[in-house]
Amino acid sequence: MSQPSIPQGTRDFSPEVMAKRNYIFSAVRKSFERFGYQPLETPSFENISTLTGKYGDEGDQLIFKVLNNGDFLSKVAPEILDEKNSKKLASSICDKALRYDLTVPFARFVVMNQNKIAFPFKRYQIQPVWRADRPQKGRYREFYQCDADVVGSNSLLNEVELVQIFDEVLSDLKVPSIIKINNRKILTGIAQVAGVSDRMMEMTIAIDKLDKIGLEGVVKELNDRGFSENSIGCISQFLEQSNNADQNFNALEASLANSEIGMKGIEELKYVLDYVASIGLRDSSIEFDVTLARGLNYYTGSIFEVKVKGISLGSICGGGRYDDLTGIFGLPNVSGVGISFGADRIYDAMTELNLFPEALKSNTKILFANFGPTEEKYSLPLLKALRNAGINTEIYPDAAKMKKQFKYADDKGIPFVAVIGEQEMQSNLINLKDMTSGDQVQLSLDELIIKMKNNI
Amino acid sequence: MSQPSIPQGTRDFSPEVMAKRNYIFSAVRKSFERFGYQPLETPSFENISTLTGKYGDEGDQLIFKVLNNGDFLSKVAPEILDEKNSKKLASSICDKALRYDLTVPFARFVVMNQNKIAFPFKRYQIQPVWRADRPQKGRYREFYQCDADVVGSNSLLNEVELVQIFDEVLSDLKVPSIIKINNRKILTGIAQVAGVSDRMMEMTIAIDKLDKIGLEGVVKELNDRGFSENSIGCISQFLEQSNNADQNFNALEASLANSEIGMKGIEELKYVLDYVASIGLRDSSIEFDVTLARGLNYYTGSIFEVKVKGISLGSICGGGRYDDLTGIFGLPNVSGVGISFGADRIYDAMTELNLFPEALKSNTKILFANFGPTEEKYSLPLLKALRNAGINTEIYPDAAKMKKQFKYADDKGIPFVAVIGEQEMQSNLINLKDMTSGDQVQLSLDELIIKMKNNI
Repeated sequence: MSQPSIPQGTRDFSPEVMAKRNYIFSAVRKSFERFGYQPLETPSFENISTLTGKYGDEGDQLIFKVLNNGDFLSKVAPEILDEKNSKKLASSICDKALRYDLTVPFARFVVMNQNKIAFPFKRYQIQPVWRADRPQKGRYREFYQCDADVVGSNSLLNEVELVQIFDEVLSDLKVPSIIKINNRKILTGIAQVAGVSDRMMEMTIAIDKLDKIGLEGVVKELNDRGFSENSIGCISQFLEQSNNADQNFNALEASLANSEIGMKGIEELKYVLDYVASIGLRDSSIEFDVTLARGLNYYTGSIFEVKVKGISLGSICGGGRYDDLTGIFGLPNVSGVGISFGADRIYDAMTELNLFPEALKSNTKILFANFGPTEEKYSLPLLKALRNAGINTEIYPDAAKMKKQFKYADDKGIPFVAVIGEQEMQSNLINLKDMTSGDQVQLSLDELIIKMKNNI
Repeated sequence: MSQPSIPQGTRDFSPEVMAKRNYIFSAVRKSFERFGYQPLETPSFENISTLTGKYGDEGDQLIFKVLNNGDFLSKVAPEILDEKNSKKLASSICDKALRYDLTVPFARFVVMNQNKIAFPFKRYQIQPVWRADRPQKGRYREFYQCDADVVGSNSLLNEVELVQIFDEVLSDLKVPSIIKINNRKILTGIAQVAGVSDRMMEMTIAIDKLDKIGLEGVVKELNDRGFSENSIGCISQFLEQSNNADQNFNALEASLANSEIGMKGIEELKYVLDYVASIGLRDSSIEFDVTLARGLNYYTGSIFEVKVKGISLGSICGGGRYDDLTGIFGLPNVSGVGISFGADRIYDAMTELNLFPEALKSNTKILFANFGPTEEKYSLPLLKALRNAGINTEIYPDAAKMKKQFKYADDKGIPFVAVIGEQEMQSNLINLKDMTSGDQVQLSLDELIIKMKNNI
């Protein structure tokens, strides 16, 4: 029998890794709920028609399809089989596909339940998604997304609160972060002023690469795409002035004065920045970045991206406002705004910066050593009392050699070992060994419970 | 555009349902960790060879296969395509399949990581599984399993603790439960005494149906299968004497006296029951049931099933000991024992018995009404203070009509609405309306925080 393996681009999450991942998910979940977002889960597979055509041609290629069960060929027309065209055959033998993101299933849910939902509808969703991308470092075929969206409200207060959520989660996790913000309407204004309104998407895609290919690269790409010299000059000017400081902000405002939509974008941006400043952020900073574009073409207002200060890693969060997400399913004009936390990237950043608490190593606080039937039976009520007090406790299931039992505690990162021998049974005390310091103390059950409660 | 839908046998879990499901999952997770079980997650799809041949022919038919991406037909031999045999073609165009349960992926994980794992390895796993079963009431194509297993230990102490976990979880959830226990070795003993050792599996399958088809039905099935009259008589005698009371236990012991394995089964059973009795259960009862068989053929020792007292519903939990789960992947002789909670069944039982707490209706404790920009800006620092104090709080994002805002709180089950108007801004107090009683009080921020903390 060959050694078993797992599919390319997938991962097992061992207990040690799970503890760290759950630490991240808990922080995200807690903040989502703190701000009134409620959990939603959708099925892992959707009808294939729900997903196709929503992610562009490239996206469509990356959707995992689920084969129909039973004698799936019996329903396929012979011509289609004879053609030997994979794409055509796939659509005849697969009715379902694994979800590619959480946004489209969310839109589908909203449309299906529009008469039951209380709008504005604030939902969060933490579930895996699947993409048939070529696996590489940091890119997986199965990975979790953590999304919060509110639909049915145009209010920019939602943007303000989503910025607060970025800050709260990342401050809780101690990840030093810069929240970058821009507004699609500003980019639309730039396209107007540069005379390329009809090629807004192409311009955005090029600008989106500024980080990776620099201004020169962007200019080259626009050139290659046949943008006029004038337009390119105008766009570069915007990109150069860019960022941060107030005077640039004023310069931008002056340059966009003739674009109504551009001015609207600036107004929205100022509102969000103003409110955020008045409430104050904990540990993150926020920064306007006119070069922030975000690839997704459904964004129409505010856009966000979060980067980690001091290490080079792509963005760890993103998001933005969209005016018509549910339109694809026949429910137009439902504006919404949402954000997404990239759990894998955050995990990598926290690993690099050594930010995971030591205590995550084990859920179990005490291991009772096992000397045999008498000691075992004596120990069980003690274990019960500790567990009832909320302390995670286990007993080694066999009377194995002490060395082996201590090694088990060590391997599992259990911080304390309780040793109950004849003497302890007589004195009614528990001998507790601190696995870090090696110190041993004799404690009554009550003292042990108090010690552990202070230790959690 | 046609109204979107979801695939047969799958479900969306709305926030209201999610709150209830998470209530169940939290109770399960808490107890698993209380007893030293640690979380594990495996990929949603496995290599198809990992799954096929592990669940019997019937199971194999129910495995969902994932279509290979790209031009999958290019790797298929023309003969296979010409044959138009769905089963053969499937194995040429699908390398991956969705997991069918959590047990096989767990065994695969243990074998792959045998040199890194600290044995005994206690893991729990709460993830969805997929089966292409015909959907019907209470049976879904995607559903969660909640498993805890320990491998690498023969100790019956594990069984004792797993029984305690059943009791703790179901007592926490207030589900009145009977834990049924038997031992496969007793069934093997019965087969020996009845002279049908070589047809143990057939006998077990028949006995397993006793609940549904009665003793008469079992006798008929054994008859149909060609068991001799003598054997059937002997088996029925065991089934008749069965259950509960000590004298029957003694009768069973006497009848099995000539079967070494049968006596071993009784010894194991007594050990578990003894220990459980000495520790005591909270709200559940435990009951020996010689007719409990469990279909799965990998069980070799203790077997469990849990039923809800007073309502007719299949078992809500199950489990048992297996001697050679990892043998299928080339690692023999790793004994283990595990249990599984059926989240959907528990959900149904709790709904029927009205056991979900009222407070689950909303995560949000307070909604701030929104009267416009001035009140909004005044309110935001109050929201921040409440959230920092750990109180889930939201503000209606627009200055909509009060009626609409109160309806929103009502629909979402938010228990309190804070109203901040001109008067409140002047007095520095918050007008808090209790949505259940209709009472209104004026509170300072500090008083509000204390009131809410007592309310959580």
